[in-house]
Amino acid sequence: MTETPRYTPIAAALPASVPFVGPETTERATGQPFRARLGANESLFGPSPKAIAAMQAAAQDVWMYGDPEVHELRHALAAHHGVSADHVVVGEGIDGLLGYLVRLTVGPGDAVVTSDGAYPTFNFHVTGFGGALHKVPYRGDFEDPEALLELAHRVRPKLIYLANPDNPMGSHHPGATIAALLDRIPDGSLLVLDEAYVELAPEGTAAPIMADDPRVIRMRTFSKGYGMAGLRVGYALAAPGLAAAFNKVRNHFGVGRVAQAGALAALADQDWLAHVRERVDASRAAIARIAKENGLTPLPSATNFVTIDCGRDGAFARAVLNQLVARGIFVRMPFVAPHDRCIRISCGDEAALAALAGVLPQALAAARS
Amino acid sequence: MTETPRYTPIAAALPASVPFVGPETTERATGQPFRARLGANESLFGPSPKAIAAMQAAAQDVWMYGDPEVHELRHALAAHHGVSADHVVVGEGIDGLLGYLVRLTVGPGDAVVTSDGAYPTFNFHVTGFGGALHKVPYRGDFEDPEALLELAHRVRPKLIYLANPDNPMGSHHPGATIAALLDRIPDGSLLVLDEAYVELAPEGTAAPIMADDPRVIRMRTFSKGYGMAGLRVGYALAAPGLAAAFNKVRNHFGVGRVAQAGALAALADQDWLAHVRERVDASRAAIARIAKENGLTPLPSATNFVTIDCGRDGAFARAVLNQLVARGIFVRMPFVAPHDRCIRISCGDEAALAALAGVLPQALAAARS
Repeated sequence: MTETPRYTPIAAALPASVPFVGPETTERATGQPFRARLGANESLFGPSPKAIAAMQAAAQDVWMYGDPEVHELRHALAAHHGVSADHVVVGEGIDGLLGYLVRLTVGPGDAVVTSDGAYPTFNFHVTGFGGALHKVPYRGDFEDPEALLELAHRVRPKLIYLANPDNPMGSHHPGATIAALLDRIPDGSLLVLDEAYVELAPEGTAAPIMADDPRVIRMRTFSKGYGMAGLRVGYALAAPGLAAAFNKVRNHFGVGRVAQAGALAALADQDWLAHVRERVDASRAAIARIAKENGLTPLPSATNFVTIDCGRDGAFARAVLNQLVARGIFVRMPFVAPHDRCIRISCGDEAALAALAGVLPQALAAARS
Repeated sequence: MTETPRYTPIAAALPASVPFVGPETTERATGQPFRARLGANESLFGPSPKAIAAMQAAAQDVWMYGDPEVHELRHALAAHHGVSADHVVVGEGIDGLLGYLVRLTVGPGDAVVTSDGAYPTFNFHVTGFGGALHKVPYRGDFEDPEALLELAHRVRPKLIYLANPDNPMGSHHPGATIAALLDRIPDGSLLVLDEAYVELAPEGTAAPIMADDPRVIRMRTFSKGYGMAGLRVGYALAAPGLAAAFNKVRNHFGVGRVAQAGALAALADQDWLAHVRERVDASRAAIARIAKENGLTPLPSATNFVTIDCGRDGAFARAVLNQLVARGIFVRMPFVAPHDRCIRISCGDEAALAALAGVLPQALAAARS
């Protein structure tokens, strides 16, 4: 008898892996809620109060499907970016949009280029559609555009992934550097420019790219600066042909009514975003101070997290992380050497950082012993 | 120069079609909001007030990702259905879950069996992954299990789709009839049993299926009876091996914090669901009365809509539909002959049905002239 269902060859070969373990899983295992949730680069400063009010109002209307064309939000985003609504695709977070993009472009054996240690969920999608990942190392703590280009010219990938600012290292390149790459990428390769953290980066980090440029797609999100990770709204900016292609595969009703209302109100409240930028700035400085007070080395950050060099190898950093987790502080760390010498701490409010500062000395002592 | 991006052969060949046009698109085209929204089988009776309160509270917490394991909701659903949490997959509506299921099982050229005129979004996914749709006609106004089985034995499909109750006709089979099919489906075929409307159907419509049966996956939703179409939460009940396979491809953070909180509260309020069932029952009777008063034939319904036979051909039913839409009543109709002799009207509250009753005579007169 045949085993049912009969999976596709790709699905049958896939591991049941998960890109990220949620903090709730750890909480259930330990039986203790975290005292500070500083591991997933969520915004402890929250979304705009106006966005909260808009979501609460929309909860009354949730019996209705969301507009499948996401008309209002797409037009508002277009006005915000000085493009047309035909350049904007809204989806279920950047994760969802990356999945659709990979599905549109990557088939079995197709080459894709990324950096070793960059966003694992992108890799999850590429592997999930049978693509072949080709990786370059970072250059120090930076993604290395030159190495990405060099490898791309060798393997002629469908997609080249680059996050700017970078996660998990928090580093960034000037937007002009990224834009200048476009003339040098191989014919037929698409640059996937993940700008999830760009609202929190220094002026000039967003790449100045012509809206109709067919060689690049930019990914943005309401999860980070706008503080709505649990709402699941991301968007892509791309040439109209590519933007329209998402209609071939996307879940047309996938961005619901509460999600659209919340994102629209958040976008309209740029004062709140400016306020968040200030708080992130202060929090980065506070995390750096806490790190230095404990003999650790904070890396410069253009994001809402600070990556901290623990000064030894991956085993030591993992011990520090485990000791922090055991003391109720949720943090994460880079997966790949040599970056796994670091731990990654999201910007927090005063209470969360006080909790961190309170236990870090003991965590370090325990990790060293 | 190569056109960028280079799409997969499947993606390049796909039409940019959309399974359903949203009512907002029509409203933008006409410049008029609908007076009654009776086309998408949304629940005008709304979700449980407790679910609204839970979503409003969760809006405060939306800076946090939702639990990627959807632990609480999966366990609550398991208790509700008398299965284990390992039998439950929660996803972005049935639409999202159907997409994952098709991706897991259907590759280029793989056969899939469904009924001609059944759920178009399922077909959208099958076509989108390169599958080959094989269709049987309905038998009268019913999906025809015997015909589905007969065709399945000829083409040995990966999937056999059957909705019970059916959309768009509103008909149903006893659950025991569906369960009895399982012993006769071809070796290696999976029955996709879409029970989106089952909470609104007569007692005994839900198929009595053993939780570990590997030959079937059942789809359920919070969009219909629970009244939260705009929240995007559906779930599947399947044998643990198949349920776990979704982890290979799903958007792990795709069901957000507000969505999980709303669904959990809705599930807990079965009194509200009973209240909705009563209102749906009364509304079905009211729609049937309105239809008869206008010389039309309402079909029996096990759902939250009534399909009305307009007594002539598809062109006439479409004229009736267009005349209703022009008068501010959003309704839809079956896509395929001979069912396109009908229009489909969702259960509404008194105001919506009064609006319908007020304009139907004029709409019919206009369609006839």
